Amino acid sequence: MDIATLIDSPSELTDSAGSKTAIVLMTRVRLARNLDRRSFPGWANEQDKAAILETCRAAVASAPAMRRGLNVALADLSDLERQILVERHLISRELSGAKSGAGLVVSRDQAVAVMINEEDHLRIQVLRSGLQLKRAWNTINDLDSNLEERLDFAYSPTLGYLTACPTNLGTAMRASAMMHLPALVIAGQMEKVVRAVNQLGMVVRGLFGEGSDASGSIFQISNQTTLGEAEEEIIKRLGSVLQSIIDHEVNAREKLIESDAGKLFDKIGRAYGILQNSHMLSSSEAMNLLSLVRLGADLGVFPAEQRSIIDRLLIEAQPGHLQHAQRGECDPSQRDLLRAARLRTEFANFGRPEFSPSRNGNN
Amino acid sequence: MDIATLIDSPSELTDSAGSKTAIVLMTRVRLARNLDRRSFPGWANEQDKAAILETCRAAVASAPAMRRGLNVALADLSDLERQILVERHLISRELSGAKSGAGLVVSRDQAVAVMINEEDHLRIQVLRSGLQLKRAWNTINDLDSNLEERLDFAYSPTLGYLTACPTNLGTAMRASAMMHLPALVIAGQMEKVVRAVNQLGMVVRGLFGEGSDASGSIFQISNQTTLGEAEEEIIKRLGSVLQSIIDHEVNAREKLIESDAGKLFDKIGRAYGILQNSHMLSSSEAMNLLSLVRLGADLGVFPAEQRSIIDRLLIEAQPGHLQHAQRGECDPSQRDLLRAARLRTEFANFGRPEFSPSRNGNN
Repeated sequence: MDIATLIDSPSELTDSAGSKTAIVLMTRVRLARNLDRRSFPGWANEQDKAAILETCRAAVASAPAMRRGLNVALADLSDLERQILVERHLISRELSGAKSGAGLVVSRDQAVAVMINEEDHLRIQVLRSGLQLKRAWNTINDLDSNLEERLDFAYSPTLGYLTACPTNLGTAMRASAMMHLPALVIAGQMEKVVRAVNQLGMVVRGLFGEGSDASGSIFQISNQTTLGEAEEEIIKRLGSVLQSIIDHEVNAREKLIESDAGKLFDKIGRAYGILQNSHMLSSSEAMNLLSLVRLGADLGVFPAEQRSIIDRLLIEAQPGHLQHAQRGECDPSQRDLLRAARLRTEFANFGRPEFSPSRNGNN
Repeated sequence: MDIATLIDSPSELTDSAGSKTAIVLMTRVRLARNLDRRSFPGWANEQDKAAILETCRAAVASAPAMRRGLNVALADLSDLERQILVERHLISRELSGAKSGAGLVVSRDQAVAVMINEEDHLRIQVLRSGLQLKRAWNTINDLDSNLEERLDFAYSPTLGYLTACPTNLGTAMRASAMMHLPALVIAGQMEKVVRAVNQLGMVVRGLFGEGSDASGSIFQISNQTTLGEAEEEIIKRLGSVLQSIIDHEVNAREKLIESDAGKLFDKIGRAYGILQNSHMLSSSEAMNLLSLVRLGADLGVFPAEQRSIIDRLLIEAQPGHLQHAQRGECDPSQRDLLRAARLRTEFANFGRPEFSPSRNGNN
């Protein structure tokens, strides 16, 4: 598969059909791995990096999970292609800026992505739409075992997997979920949730990880520690934290409807009206409006099956995807016109909202 | 005609069919008159005021223009009824607060209203939709002549008509137009217009006259001076100032479309989308949104015949009318829900916007 085919195929994240819990948009597990006795990417010289890249690309691409997928050197991708990969959460912002020596292997269904020579030699990640922590873990565990047969990983019996940054030592695993928490945001309860989650050893971040903001009321929750706890244990603990956040969000939604349905419906209605009629829309405003309409779909204001349209637009309304659809790069103000035009078209045939407090509560 | 019948009949202002110039919503001429050798209302005792009220009501109600109209003492009107009369520009805010001794006579078509014992014994006014200064002047001139046959007005050969406030001395006439100037507001040119208009001896005020704000980009332009100039001369001079403001507004609209059609269409589209989908709407936000949709109708974004729907809603979305339609008073937050519900219903079948820069320019 080449990059053009990948881009024209839907992202795993737009397939929310299999998701039982709409509040969790996506589950992700990633492992950091490094080749034994080879310099970490930050220390390696160009020649070392090139050799490591070659070894890793060959090993990863031949794993059964990655067959007929994408296998590229980052240097061969345009800026726009890199941006699209970031927007699909297939590569990190750091890797998208890589000049040389970096590579990427993506499975055909876009659920598995392996970054080469990012901070570590290998960053293996599995994405699954909705809440599918165990399934994501099983997939990544199988791939890791497969790679271990052909690559010699840096491993210490006392410290576990060795990584470029000491915070990843041990399991070198980070499991996370991308959650849609509009009611907690509207009710002003996110700060409280973040504190509680931190006390349980988990971290809350914005949509694109560390240092990014939570536009669209979308947050990433992930484990903080990688040392002294088995992978399955971390996955289980994260799962129960996620369930507790889901319960709080559901509760916050019910309270909002009980205490001030008019205000909530007003927000959802206006968001829909603006998406259907605006002529200039920034990326961040679009995310926030789509987020409110998504909440509407959860509450029965819109048919539940329309949620997948919104999930697709949450990705396709972003700058890279938008420019790709227009076959060319353009400046931000031009993008805002294109984004509004695209969303007007998408929402022209979107079902009209039906507000009735009794329809809510199906999460 | 009783007050209930008046309220249930459409205001003269909603009949914009006869108006060639949509930018002028309404033309108004008013005359202040006082009975000779009787104390002004501010000085008169209760007994005097009652006698003046009786004399004036009888004389005005028997004028041909006022036949089968409304003839009431303010004391007999509820707060809500008074508020509705203010919203239709039939009485002033001052008169609506009158406790006793004040009266009102309104013609059957709601184009002529005579306030009794407001600041002067008689405040005679004629309203006409659109730009109809001469027609308004002819109507009021006829009524004034008719009243003069039966009432003895305070008049000085050197000062003209005597009035409670010296600023009205002379003709005691104020002619005004209510203008819709959204493009001048968006382009930030209103301050310049106000200065120029002032230099020509005219005054710019908000929607409800002195001290009110210009929500919905609606302004009142009127003559400042009443002394040393004949009525016809004032009317003529005001007419040419109005025409010049119309030209500036038309020009500002053309420039906005040329320079940034996207931004203008964005404002109009969002206003329409919010009116169609909001669930909470304050009076002032509703005015501003309706104002933008009205601009859209002027520019061909909506069919021109829908402008009369907006003109009606500019009056009916106000607090008094809204509460009357719901058959009872309610608090402001409840009103905001009712207003949004009313506008959702009205806009559900409003034609969808069609944006095309070439359709503009029909003012």
